[in-house]
Amino acid sequence: MSDGEGHEPAGRLSHLKGSGEAHIVDVGAKPATARSATAEGWIEMAPPALQALRDGELEKGDALATARIAGLMAAKRTAELVPLCHPVPLTHAEVELHVETEQQRVRCRGHAETVERTGVEMEALTAVQVALLTVYDMCKALDRGMRIGGVELVAKSGGRSGTWQR
Amino acid sequence: MSDGEGHEPAGRLSHLKGSGEAHIVDVGAKPATARSATAEGWIEMAPPALQALRDGELEKGDALATARIAGLMAAKRTAELVPLCHPVPLTHAEVELHVETEQQRVRCRGHAETVERTGVEMEALTAVQVALLTVYDMCKALDRGMRIGGVELVAKSGGRSGTWQR
Amino acid sequence: MSDGEGHEPAGRLSHLKGSGEAHIVDVGAKPATARSATAEGWIEMAPPALQALRDGELEKGDALATARIAGLMAAKRTAELVPLCHPVPLTHAEVELHVETEQQRVRCRGHAETVERTGVEMEALTAVQVALLTVYDMCKALDRGMRIGGVELVAKSGGRSGTWQR
Amino acid sequence: MSDGEGHEPAGRLSHLKGSGEAHIVDVGAKPATARSATAEGWIEMAPPALQALRDGELEKGDALATARIAGLMAAKRTAELVPLCHPVPLTHAEVELHVETEQQRVRCRGHAETVERTGVEMEALTAVQVALLTVYDMCKALDRGMRIGGVELVAKSGGRSGTWQR
Amino acid sequence: MSDGEGHEPAGRLSHLKGSGEAHIVDVGAKPATARSATAEGWIEMAPPALQALRDGELEKGDALATARIAGLMAAKRTAELVPLCHPVPLTHAEVELHVETEQQRVRCRGHAETVERTGVEMEALTAVQVALLTVYDMCKALDRGMRIGGVELVAKSGGRSGTWQR
Amino acid sequence: MSDGEGHEPAGRLSHLKGSGEAHIVDVGAKPATARSATAEGWIEMAPPALQALRDGELEKGDALATARIAGLMAAKRTAELVPLCHPVPLTHAEVELHVETEQQRVRCRGHAETVERTGVEMEALTAVQVALLTVYDMCKALDRGMRIGGVELVAKSGGRSGTWQR
Repeated sequence: MSDGEGHEPAGRLSHLKGSGEAHIVDVGAKPATARSATAEGWIEMAPPALQALRDGELEKGDALATARIAGLMAAKRTAELVPLCHPVPLTHAEVELHVETEQQRVRCRGHAETVERTGVEMEALTAVQVALLTVYDMCKALDRGMRIGGVELVAKSGGRSGTWQR
Repeated sequence: MSDGEGHEPAGRLSHLKGSGEAHIVDVGAKPATARSATAEGWIEMAPPALQALRDGELEKGDALATARIAGLMAAKRTAELVPLCHPVPLTHAEVELHVETEQQRVRCRGHAETVERTGVEMEALTAVQVALLTVYDMCKALDRGMRIGGVELVAKSGGRSGTWQR
Repeated sequence: MSDGEGHEPAGRLSHLKGSGEAHIVDVGAKPATARSATAEGWIEMAPPALQALRDGELEKGDALATARIAGLMAAKRTAELVPLCHPVPLTHAEVELHVETEQQRVRCRGHAETVERTGVEMEALTAVQVALLTVYDMCKALDRGMRIGGVELVAKSGGRSGTWQR
Repeated sequence: MSDGEGHEPAGRLSHLKGSGEAHIVDVGAKPATARSATAEGWIEMAPPALQALRDGELEKGDALATARIAGLMAAKRTAELVPLCHPVPLTHAEVELHVETEQQRVRCRGHAETVERTGVEMEALTAVQVALLTVYDMCKALDRGMRIGGVELVAKSGGRSGTWQR
Repeated sequence: MSDGEGHEPAGRLSHLKGSGEAHIVDVGAKPATARSATAEGWIEMAPPALQALRDGELEKGDALATARIAGLMAAKRTAELVPLCHPVPLTHAEVELHVETEQQRVRCRGHAETVERTGVEMEALTAVQVALLTVYDMCKALDRGMRIGGVELVAKSGGRSGTWQR
Repeated sequence: MSDGEGHEPAGRLSHLKGSGEAHIVDVGAKPATARSATAEGWIEMAPPALQALRDGELEKGDALATARIAGLMAAKRTAELVPLCHPVPLTHAEVELHVETEQQRVRCRGHAETVERTGVEMEALTAVQVALLTVYDMCKALDRGMRIGGVELVAKSGGRSGTWQR
């Protein structure tokens, strides 16, 4: 994926493509450097569903372990899903999920790293999105009204734009 | 994917797998019937990013057209991403995106249909999630702080549980 | 994939989507019936490349056997490649390649069958396209100027539009 | 993918594999350098189909925007389709399509770049092939007899063989 | 996948393809019926690796939970991996792994079901193979010499050849 | 994939993840160096099946050529199948199969190379596993009782752990 550093200067749009045609921006001249990104999000659900998830009573099995694997695997396939993302071989990825009982939700954090010409924000976000989809799938027999929200980048480092923190 | 009808009775958990091991639930005895599902979600962003998206001024190209295609293609690959989803050949799929200027966001609606033994909620949700990820990718040069939320099922029909509307 | 029978009447365009937005057309109401399609195409190359291909002297190995497998495998993934294609489980597929010495080319024929709600023209064409790409890949060390052409549907059967022959 | 530079000297076939068994040639000793490739092709169709495509009246939606995305996404998956291609993370990709009214066809140009040990001719050609397949899919309700042709490399640069132009 | 029922009579080889060219055999005339298959296999390893796996002390995390998900996901993609397999939408899949302490190995059992024109032996075997590969990956920091063996079909049912048991 | 060098010191388990949660270990600080791996395995079958395979009399076509391609293509997709494998662009891959008449089996050897931060053992093993699955698929009409075994790493080189030979 591109971390938006392909345009000059940051904050303005270059008009390389007058016609607005979708393309994968050129990052060939950028150096391959260490980059990381962390994203978060949550899924909120009705108490019985959250209870069953916590107690390991879901018909489909362990939701958090399954979602973690799903998120990691999806991160590796980000460039297949997001059309204009550059393919980036990840050097490190983590997905964490934990139950926030008071807010009646499961929170997910995804982290990705690479040593490449472009950032890994999309990989971190994709990990979170697919992990949360997987929790939905595991719990939907008990609650169809679950809602996913708060999906956002929380930090990134590396590349010309340097470190960014929410 | 499974629409949660594999357990008996609805609302309770069968304990086929005492160990809580993840598995793809058996839907072989269910009849293949017409099923549909619709999901929604949004991505909110800073005014300059939304403005550039609306004006077709994004460096990467037309965000809405690209996101629509990305959502449709992802819907067809749902069972590759969500580990315990049944593979379901879709008979119909649509992804709509439109700008909600006042709320400073892009809203996405995904719709999927099949004639199968299990529902298509996951396909509709996956279409929305990947379409919103794609909007993020197209706009992130102008706003890293965008947030995805409100991702939820809005309606489903077909299967033993029949029609459900939020 | 859709065989274009989703619109009414054949030969005219329904305007279900006023905005011209891409979508996967609804074939849910169509019956699942036996359908087949056959497509063809060729790749022409310089005499030394064709000679090496025929003599089994290519550095990368047996071009025709490799291309045949590549075409068959691609046919099964057509709906992943062509955005608005319906996923169709094939019941039969063949790819044939043979050398046409006089025309200095390799001709490819792809055939696909299913019992579904939509046709398999795209699967037959995809098989041909990817088989020919593979021949290009195997031979390009000897000829960069190869040209692929004549890729077209030669016959289809099944569905409301019935049998069609070039 | 390999650009055929794995053999010594160029223009002759090394016989590393006496048995002619397919394999992915060794490029490990080659330096990673900037490489690019451009390919072209066209699809010709009957006047009513071309007219509907130009007027945005196709039932399936906007053919050129959809084909552009399809071509870009396929380029990233070239090594999954073409058996002996090396996987190459692209640093830049573009797909352009435009209508050639007089010749009654749509012309496609695909461009790919990387900084790797092997060239990207196959990626550029795959982008063109899948973009043209997508145009076929979008228009086939109006014309089954469309024909794809003229698919060829038009230029490449980088690697030991240097720049090549048709 | 095909369960070998495409030839007539069982036990003999029809010579539809005189040239021995690979193809996906025609199952279009066969009825869609309930089919199941179960396969098994094991991976043996050195005592320290097995101990770490059992104690949940592997650096990469929980090997059995990860392998189970990997096997289930691979089963759904069998037709992408095995060139002449028919695509088969699974209606049920399970992967079980357990430690056999005395034999110093982990045993895996994979089970798949569908209601289709062809059997699911390959899906069950693929689930086992990829689950065992995943165990290898999780444990290889402690033992490079692990060995996978005993991978075989243990039972199948459905289709013209009926029930088969090892 | 990771070659297990991510932990310190070799032979002991670091406890970076107290909870034992699956993750893709960090290899970002490791240098990209030349690495290779070779794996082997076999499939044994009844004499009539082996005879038909050798004589090119299998209904599905040439088993060894098909299995070779399948193995090579699977090696490139290892990181999609094995959840915690790092994606590794291969620079070289080979799959060899030959009949061992006396033992009534087909032996397969897979070899992979890269210039990366992590090893390619999993790629070599995946090539062997999928090639053997493909032989099973091609021959199963004649023998359902085939057994795959002896799948193991035979050599690796490169990385901190250096050369390893069985």
